[in-house]
Amino acid sequence: MGDNEWGSIKYPFVPGHEMTGIVTKVGSNVKKFKVGDRVGAGAMAATCLDCELCTSSKENYCEKLELIIGGTFWDGTVMQGGFSKLIVYDQRYIVHVPESLPMDAASPLLCAGITVFTPMKYNHLFETTGRKVGVVGLGGLGHVAVKFAKAFGHHVTIISTSPSKEKEARVRLGADDFLLSTDANQMQAKKRSLDVIIDTTAVARDLGATLELLKVDGTLCIVGIPGEPYELPAIPLTFGKKNIQGSLIGSIEETQEMMDICGKHNITCDIELVKPGQINEAFDRILRNDIKYRFVIDIAEET
Amino acid sequence: MGDNEWGSIKYPFVPGHEMTGIVTKVGSNVKKFKVGDRVGAGAMAATCLDCELCTSSKENYCEKLELIIGGTFWDGTVMQGGFSKLIVYDQRYIVHVPESLPMDAASPLLCAGITVFTPMKYNHLFETTGRKVGVVGLGGLGHVAVKFAKAFGHHVTIISTSPSKEKEARVRLGADDFLLSTDANQMQAKKRSLDVIIDTTAVARDLGATLELLKVDGTLCIVGIPGEPYELPAIPLTFGKKNIQGSLIGSIEETQEMMDICGKHNITCDIELVKPGQINEAFDRILRNDIKYRFVIDIAEET
Repeated sequence: MGDNEWGSIKYPFVPGHEMTGIVTKVGSNVKKFKVGDRVGAGAMAATCLDCELCTSSKENYCEKLELIIGGTFWDGTVMQGGFSKLIVYDQRYIVHVPESLPMDAASPLLCAGITVFTPMKYNHLFETTGRKVGVVGLGGLGHVAVKFAKAFGHHVTIISTSPSKEKEARVRLGADDFLLSTDANQMQAKKRSLDVIIDTTAVARDLGATLELLKVDGTLCIVGIPGEPYELPAIPLTFGKKNIQGSLIGSIEETQEMMDICGKHNITCDIELVKPGQINEAFDRILRNDIKYRFVIDIAEET
Repeated sequence: MGDNEWGSIKYPFVPGHEMTGIVTKVGSNVKKFKVGDRVGAGAMAATCLDCELCTSSKENYCEKLELIIGGTFWDGTVMQGGFSKLIVYDQRYIVHVPESLPMDAASPLLCAGITVFTPMKYNHLFETTGRKVGVVGLGGLGHVAVKFAKAFGHHVTIISTSPSKEKEARVRLGADDFLLSTDANQMQAKKRSLDVIIDTTAVARDLGATLELLKVDGTLCIVGIPGEPYELPAIPLTFGKKNIQGSLIGSIEETQEMMDICGKHNITCDIELVKPGQINEAFDRILRNDIKYRFVIDIAEET
């Protein structure tokens, strides 16, 4: 897979790319896991194993990355996602889930969590404290970013288009500030105030107003993938010495590191557990934005 | 000046923001320079002196940055640029020109040179060797970037829309590779091959193809300021973990550091010296792209 395509996804496919479960069977070469282990798996299900990225624990950037949802495994099998009672993964692409974490609320960490964890790690937010962190969008990814940032003592500003999220952001998630991105005065009043911004929205737009919130040499992390390009104006980028970083999920090493941190700091996703028979209803509610913050399907439950 | 405006430039103004000359007079508080010194000055002519940026040698990002070309000095004077036999600068905004450098060919270092020097410095190109460096655009800025990169032993690829520049790039400037950016096959063949790209073109365009030339975690440095925004597609940015950095000229400390490096490595700009009476002709030639790589006006010469 190159920098401009989604690889070899075959449609139709079974969705589900944030999974937790119990190991029921292991192959004869499996050393990392045993039957009964609590494990998690995310989108990544195969990589080339040979390239410089695969051999340096950056396999999520391997050009041969294949996803569990409709990607192609080494043996030619078209893979299917986690809306299923059983799933087979190569041991290279799963992680241990700490005993302290509930399996359901830990599940979205495997994609939503790791997607915001890595850019926060690249920007040293797990080794420092008291930095000014912005989070654009308060959804499945954004609310986990807030939890990470608050757990490590940072000052968190939510940047959102929804005034209705302010109370939730401040009271329940403990955000320190809230900016309505549609209010130019509010945005202008906070220019050059943030060290790092994690943009979780996947909404193509003019990035100028977001960049202006950053201090000189601050960094905007882009983890969403809108179909249309962003507009990037040169003046806020150059006059303020701003940085933009792209990031895609994380390596398995980073995913395990995140799970261990979550176990230690008791960080999980806020979820609503549904049964398999409620999937269509849940999808309809997602389309209406009636979700806080992830639906998790308890696949063991009968409908 | 904020992140989205050009400050308080007053029109009309006298141009000229890359100057070298001899000190003819100094104020009573001037300690850094004496009459007879060889000095240079660039675009920056006043900053607030008090902010965190000014007090940490990052005054080029001060929000009160004022330019010599039509900016406003502390006393309210509207400043005029270097197309003039005499010019007054505060000692804070000038640098020493090493004895080994010719004054005329050193002059464009004060803006073209420092503009490419700083992003190369941020990316550690003056402390490492053998990295794969791309330079987009082979003009006033680009040809200096090639000289810096070659002086420090890097592998240089020119990325240009002009096939006619290939021989010049390889033979005269010593570039190691040349990519025609309009040739999708050439570009595709070199994807994920470069560590750092300095984009000197100031041409608003889709940045996707340029980003794809970068290795994972590579950096595209933007120093130009086109009027229209760039298009920034998310897939090459995220799937390849690419970085984009904006940069604006440099601090005076960095400018002196660059001049000293240029003096040591004998790096100057390739120029064509003209007399004041030839300015209009030179402007016409710039519009026709008939220039290698900067015109420098010998203001001491009579027309």
